[in-house]
Amino acid sequence: MSGQYRDYPKHLIRKLPRYYRYLNEQKQLGREYISSNELALLMGISPSQVRQDFNRFLYNGYHGVGYNVSAILEQITELLDLKTKKNTIIIGAGNLGQSLSNYDELKNCGFEIKAFFDINPKLTGAVINGIKVFDMDKIGEYIEAENIVAAILALPTEGTSEIARKISEYGVTMFLNFNPVFFEFERDVFIENVHIDDNLMMLSYKGAGERNDEK
Amino acid sequence: MSGQYRDYPKHLIRKLPRYYRYLNEQKQLGREYISSNELALLMGISPSQVRQDFNRFLYNGYHGVGYNVSAILEQITELLDLKTKKNTIIIGAGNLGQSLSNYDELKNCGFEIKAFFDINPKLTGAVINGIKVFDMDKIGEYIEAENIVAAILALPTEGTSEIARKISEYGVTMFLNFNPVFFEFERDVFIENVHIDDNLMMLSYKGAGERNDEK
Repeated sequence: MSGQYRDYPKHLIRKLPRYYRYLNEQKQLGREYISSNELALLMGISPSQVRQDFNRFLYNGYHGVGYNVSAILEQITELLDLKTKKNTIIIGAGNLGQSLSNYDELKNCGFEIKAFFDINPKLTGAVINGIKVFDMDKIGEYIEAENIVAAILALPTEGTSEIARKISEYGVTMFLNFNPVFFEFERDVFIENVHIDDNLMMLSYKGAGERNDEK
Repeated sequence: MSGQYRDYPKHLIRKLPRYYRYLNEQKQLGREYISSNELALLMGISPSQVRQDFNRFLYNGYHGVGYNVSAILEQITELLDLKTKKNTIIIGAGNLGQSLSNYDELKNCGFEIKAFFDINPKLTGAVINGIKVFDMDKIGEYIEAENIVAAILALPTEGTSEIARKISEYGVTMFLNFNPVFFEFERDVFIENVHIDDNLMMLSYKGAGERNDEK
């Protein structure tokens, strides 16, 4: 792919994973075509917004029967670079790290888990879900030798940002962070923070409305 | 709290957890006041948008020194009903469920974990992080006896939506779902889906731009 997509506004790019999910569900259900009206309903946006997005971003061959589901999925896959293999390590081989190593979506997005790293020396050498655990001391040479570009930060502890900063110096440019302490890098190193706390707060809000309605 | 907040548009409510996180960070750093300009920078929105949100939603006592951080946090806590204790169960006592049972934000949002439930009979009776594992057969009576209102779906398997539907009939109205298969309920039962796949796709996109820039 070319680098042309970088100029798209972030709020438009942010919609693509949701389009992908809904379209993929429709594909699994055997749908070949979908109308802008149906897709708008799934996305919770207006049909004209869907058409606008598709004219700007995606497959715009609407031919009466609707948009071709597979063709759009193919385009999103390319836009988001999901097919490119990204050698990935998981830092933290505890419960969270272990459960993530089983997570199918990693592979679907091109993230291939090559190794665990953990500060607990008792775990060194263990093999979990077919993936070996290495000692943190070896992380720099491993990253360079295995061409690791992505790291999943599954550490519950403080010190996560220091570890991330250290390994970014060896060439890791993509981080998926589960630690509730968030941090940023200078440009060219990218973090996605998983905000489970946001989900919890929204759930609390929704449930509060429900409880109030009952009164 | 009264039920008046339900009429706020969802996109405004969705901002509150982010305000909460940034303001809480500032509070931890010892800040008592923050200006709309500073907060706008953290949130990635315009200062006038911050002032507009605060006039509509939140503490609007801006007095030259800025907004009172603690006062706003207090208001968001009330708006989102975070202080109300919500008796909660985790369904699935595997790696994901276990790691979630340690997650501090649950308690901070009022979700108190009372029990695990698991289909694996070998786990029945075990105590994990101080929380007992029960057999799925007992779930209905447990929910009613212990006044459970929320459930965390930490099942990797299919069948999650059937389990959720079943236990909603016993009175659970709030679900946090980690299963990549998403589903909806009729009104008055609320689901928050944790979309780790969205984070992965965005990370792939960002990294792709980086790799292209290098070419």
